[in-house]
Amino acid sequence: MGFLGERYAIAGVGETDWTRESGRTPLTLAVEAAQDALADAGLVPQEVDGFLSYAEGDSADGLHLASALGAQPNYAAEIVGGGSSAEFLVATAAAAIEAGLCSTVLCYRAMNGRSGRRFGTQESDGFSFEQIYPFSSFFSTQGITSPAQHYALIARRHMHEYGTTTEQLGAVALQFREHAGRNPRAMMHGRPLTMTDYLGAPPIVDPFVLFDCCLETDGAAACIVTSVDRARDLRQTPVSVLGAATRSGGSNVYHYGLPVITEAAGHHLAPRLFEMAGLRPGDVDVAGIYDCFTFTVLIQLEDYGFCEKGEGGAFVEDNRLSLGGALPCNTAGGQLSEAYTHGMNNLIEVVRQLRGDYVGTHRQVAEAEVGLSTGWGGPEVASALLLGARG
Amino acid sequence: MGFLGERYAIAGVGETDWTRESGRTPLTLAVEAAQDALADAGLVPQEVDGFLSYAEGDSADGLHLASALGAQPNYAAEIVGGGSSAEFLVATAAAAIEAGLCSTVLCYRAMNGRSGRRFGTQESDGFSFEQIYPFSSFFSTQGITSPAQHYALIARRHMHEYGTTTEQLGAVALQFREHAGRNPRAMMHGRPLTMTDYLGAPPIVDPFVLFDCCLETDGAAACIVTSVDRARDLRQTPVSVLGAATRSGGSNVYHYGLPVITEAAGHHLAPRLFEMAGLRPGDVDVAGIYDCFTFTVLIQLEDYGFCEKGEGGAFVEDNRLSLGGALPCNTAGGQLSEAYTHGMNNLIEVVRQLRGDYVGTHRQVAEAEVGLSTGWGGPEVASALLLGARG
Repeated sequence: MGFLGERYAIAGVGETDWTRESGRTPLTLAVEAAQDALADAGLVPQEVDGFLSYAEGDSADGLHLASALGAQPNYAAEIVGGGSSAEFLVATAAAAIEAGLCSTVLCYRAMNGRSGRRFGTQESDGFSFEQIYPFSSFFSTQGITSPAQHYALIARRHMHEYGTTTEQLGAVALQFREHAGRNPRAMMHGRPLTMTDYLGAPPIVDPFVLFDCCLETDGAAACIVTSVDRARDLRQTPVSVLGAATRSGGSNVYHYGLPVITEAAGHHLAPRLFEMAGLRPGDVDVAGIYDCFTFTVLIQLEDYGFCEKGEGGAFVEDNRLSLGGALPCNTAGGQLSEAYTHGMNNLIEVVRQLRGDYVGTHRQVAEAEVGLSTGWGGPEVASALLLGARG
Repeated sequence: MGFLGERYAIAGVGETDWTRESGRTPLTLAVEAAQDALADAGLVPQEVDGFLSYAEGDSADGLHLASALGAQPNYAAEIVGGGSSAEFLVATAAAAIEAGLCSTVLCYRAMNGRSGRRFGTQESDGFSFEQIYPFSSFFSTQGITSPAQHYALIARRHMHEYGTTTEQLGAVALQFREHAGRNPRAMMHGRPLTMTDYLGAPPIVDPFVLFDCCLETDGAAACIVTSVDRARDLRQTPVSVLGAATRSGGSNVYHYGLPVITEAAGHHLAPRLFEMAGLRPGDVDVAGIYDCFTFTVLIQLEDYGFCEKGEGGAFVEDNRLSLGGALPCNTAGGQLSEAYTHGMNNLIEVVRQLRGDYVGTHRQVAEAEVGLSTGWGGPEVASALLLGARG
């Protein structure tokens, strides 16, 4: 029943502040996020023996972090894979524990995404999108060198095929900004956005304007995976992993043709994910949908089965992604308005909603029992988790 | 009983030729090694749905490789961690299969280690040891910028503490070169080495001379992990994973003091590894010991329990590592004389010995039933597997 019998859970979550210039190293950021997650769980560093992170650009490796925390690792790795990584790390952590390789795993992402190595640009220090995604070599000769350019091609085709509108992309941006208004930690807290603002924003890559693109953030985010049995003895309500599907690739990056170009990389894994958990999209109460761009939310809603192909634009209208909507989504502001951490902050927010951390405030999704967290990177690879506060 | 009930096995192995200038991309090398391993197992690419590799320097990522092979990945990652990676990948592959994330995993390493990015030097294209091992920042200010310099400090201290001799380091080099003489594919095949050659070789970093240091190799190596049940239906005798311990870090890199500096990174994991498998060091019939330097073999023999601390030098004398010796070791020539693949070639050779691939030739270790493969990277992190042809 479910992923590893639903015997693994997220026992704690934490993060640093989100800034544009942290003034600290990625290692220091990782230590801060780890300490925050450990305090949340009620653990000391010596009780963690697994360290998994994703490590593109500047980052802090697990052995380094373990040493800084005074912990002894039994399982540690840094992986590459960008936006599809957070869910991959959690699933791999549970698998490693099940295999007896370790017992409690800290999954994290630490980077100076604004003041250090930036993902949306080509930097003068030799780091480039192409260096970490070898397939990009095929596109750089066409002048396509940044993530925005890749996703823009898919977005424009989707608009052509299905009549998706600029205003529908804007609806995603506005909704997540409204969520950031409820989250004092969000980088865009206190900076409301109107459709007039959105439509007047500077273009980045057609059809994307400034507010279609995620933030650039210095910071770190972490979550702790352990057995449900162990988690039950800790401070927080365990949030169980009900389903997991990892790093399934579509191949749209190699074949910009129909129908592939209008599919999210999660297209192939979604049926497997829901079947594993014995759930349907309609069972999801709160979601963290990978939002490197507004458009990626819209298309994933289609490919994870919340609406038919081509209807993502209509779905995001009428406040369906709001806290009281049909599918409350990226409720801390997402990567568009809270912080960009390659998805880890979205995953953490789903955990907090399922735990009921915000009960009594204007941030809580009512009766949130099942959560979905999706990752999408590359843009040809995805991972996803179904989570539940059944612990 | 054992690692995941001994229900996971290596079902196929393969590699490219070993050269100093392949003239092919890492992706082409990865495809060749994958096809060789698939043919060995009797699988077609579409039967593989997991892709795990280690990806420092130039390399080929799993999604790229899957696309080139025409396979659809359900689990894919590239990890960093150098010489401790091969065993980590195999253990993680088995864990991921157990968790239901995928069913059959190709683990591989592909790189142009000589004509592309070299690990022993600082390259002009911006790649450096320091870039992939952040801890190196602490040492580069002291002029310590290459792996040879790190391990040399440990070796010299070991010689000081325990009387380990230059000739004992040389005994490792000579033995593995003798093994390469039996392996027509080895880079050093047909190039016998004498102690006179060894003692007269150019110094690299005291106490290491040329023949203490591993080769630099263009090439790729791969192995396929699946369930024992599945492997039994394939071409080869399955080689089961009896025990696995992954990425345990010592902390000697941060504290060059006694006793830590005279411990291999595998020191902490060895007891766990043998206990998991219900085996003792004396049960090991054939070993692949991570040989980035001659010295790393000698010290790991101590820390994996084949002799007492300080007696590694004496142990490697009297041909104990030869095919007819007490512990036949790196029997294809190792990374010192076959090829440098961050350890994957040593792991593959253990598999072949356990399968009895060389029966009837002068390469087979008699009655090889239990094998050990160790990895060591960084130099502060290790992984290891115990393998058995019990399938």
